[in-house]
Amino acid sequence: MNEFELIDRLQGIVNARTAGLPKPGCVGIGDDAAVLSNEPGRQLLVTTDTLVAGVHFPHGSAPYDIGWKALAVNLSDLAAMGGQAVCFFLAITIPQPNREWLDEFAQGLEQLAASSGVYLAGGDTTLGPLSITITALGAVDSGQALLRSGARPGDLVVLSGATGLAGLGLLQVQQEIPVDPAAWQAFTRPQPRLALARALLGNATACIDISDGLAADLGHILTASQVGAQLLLHHLPCPDALCKLDPQQRWNLQLAAGDDYELCFTLPAALEAQLPLLAVAGGVALTVIGRITGEMGLHLYQADGTEFLPTRLGYEHFSERGKL
Amino acid sequence: MNEFELIDRLQGIVNARTAGLPKPGCVGIGDDAAVLSNEPGRQLLVTTDTLVAGVHFPHGSAPYDIGWKALAVNLSDLAAMGGQAVCFFLAITIPQPNREWLDEFAQGLEQLAASSGVYLAGGDTTLGPLSITITALGAVDSGQALLRSGARPGDLVVLSGATGLAGLGLLQVQQEIPVDPAAWQAFTRPQPRLALARALLGNATACIDISDGLAADLGHILTASQVGAQLLLHHLPCPDALCKLDPQQRWNLQLAAGDDYELCFTLPAALEAQLPLLAVAGGVALTVIGRITGEMGLHLYQADGTEFLPTRLGYEHFSERGKL
Repeated sequence: MNEFELIDRLQGIVNARTAGLPKPGCVGIGDDAAVLSNEPGRQLLVTTDTLVAGVHFPHGSAPYDIGWKALAVNLSDLAAMGGQAVCFFLAITIPQPNREWLDEFAQGLEQLAASSGVYLAGGDTTLGPLSITITALGAVDSGQALLRSGARPGDLVVLSGATGLAGLGLLQVQQEIPVDPAAWQAFTRPQPRLALARALLGNATACIDISDGLAADLGHILTASQVGAQLLLHHLPCPDALCKLDPQQRWNLQLAAGDDYELCFTLPAALEAQLPLLAVAGGVALTVIGRITGEMGLHLYQADGTEFLPTRLGYEHFSERGKL
Repeated sequence: MNEFELIDRLQGIVNARTAGLPKPGCVGIGDDAAVLSNEPGRQLLVTTDTLVAGVHFPHGSAPYDIGWKALAVNLSDLAAMGGQAVCFFLAITIPQPNREWLDEFAQGLEQLAASSGVYLAGGDTTLGPLSITITALGAVDSGQALLRSGARPGDLVVLSGATGLAGLGLLQVQQEIPVDPAAWQAFTRPQPRLALARALLGNATACIDISDGLAADLGHILTASQVGAQLLLHHLPCPDALCKLDPQQRWNLQLAAGDDYELCFTLPAALEAQLPLLAVAGGVALTVIGRITGEMGLHLYQADGTEFLPTRLGYEHFSERGKL
């Protein structure tokens, strides 16, 4: 059973027979965050993500980095919906009480919380194998949430920042070879693109954050929007550490390694001239990497026009996180 | 470091330097659930709880029971605030994908969800040591949430159902002696007192759910309300399985074992005549077990008027769950 089958299974069993379903205009399972009714004119966004030692970060990772990332991946889901982050709930399980470890963990959490304008609203502490679940709450004007389902043929496919660096960092650690500092930074301290998300409201037609790999996550937009896409691989921004690699390895990392927490969104072609302004508002480079097509399917083209067939298409397996 | 020190530490580090604090009339860390602003006239309740295999339930527990209890402990926190339960988010970490296990788990979850009128709104799946974190959302009329801080001298201390059975069930399993069926039922299938919670709105002055033991949890009310209490131990309802025990063991279980998920609330003495109506509305027996006093401290009296000094006063240690 892969993660998607499990999600279907839980959804089918639990939701179908449960009375109170989301109200009209609200969204349940199947996007980056749930959209719930809130005060008139505003909707509530809720998302939850777990980080487990040895799965999402190496055993022995710096507690500061764990605190940062546990919050970052949740704020990234709010960003992917165009949300303003409000607060979060922390459920932490640690093997034993350790004041120094917890101090550093809390500092990583606090640093990102402060710079993102969110507060810790509650939580739960437990002894056991190291694991952190954060549930983050955000808000968005009613009906404005950036869903996966709005991409239309002719829209541009746009990427914030670059993909592949985080995957390279993890790969180098796993291979026990010297780790590129920029790659390690990308893996340990992802930046949720909350400012960009706000700028995209009313502009982007669909949006997702890249946790499982660009190809897989863009694939969710394509499926939800019932469209296809053509990507131009030579348009993918290439950080120095990746440009040294051979193209096959580079593109596999950039398309499928995941853990990037950049935003991939679609934009009507008529708004292309807005991209520099959106980039300034978002504080991050934006690159047009392809175009939405009416024919289903994702096609990847190299500079010479030949199609690239990746050896893997993203973390589909249950061993990775699976967003319900 | 015990759980309360950890909570203070995380709260101090993360909250103090974080900009956006809860709005006036809202409640952050320190009660059963956070109270957040919602639509006009309504407030949102949010709570999160983790269950870890080997800590909160024995390894090898029936997956149906785990699903039930993971949701029940969260709904119990909403009940303790007088909330109407709305929906929940599930973050589940399991050692390996197992269709049969997941089916049974989902059925336990679904059964309680359906009878409580809540739906699964999202979540996250991960491979790793078995652990379940649920975040539940509820709603309450603005300013009506049952806080821990409203108890006044002269109020009655009232208990729903009985305490101690769940603790007996766990103790018998741990001692590998035959387990009393009622005790096992109490441990594995706690009933969140949502109907009672609604009936208490406008009547109770303070309320808490009993997860860590009656004495410790009532202690939270006393501290938050800056009052004391006198309990009459011979007034504690005594299920058959507990009445067979010697008083010392019985009272230790009833006061300190926890995992009961009954409600302990305070009620103005003038409303004592309402208790039978509240019991009918809540679908559970209600018993006056003591009275709030102006002098701080919790005093426990036996039938002959002598004071009882328990050998333990609840799960204060970090090894147990600690609500932020």
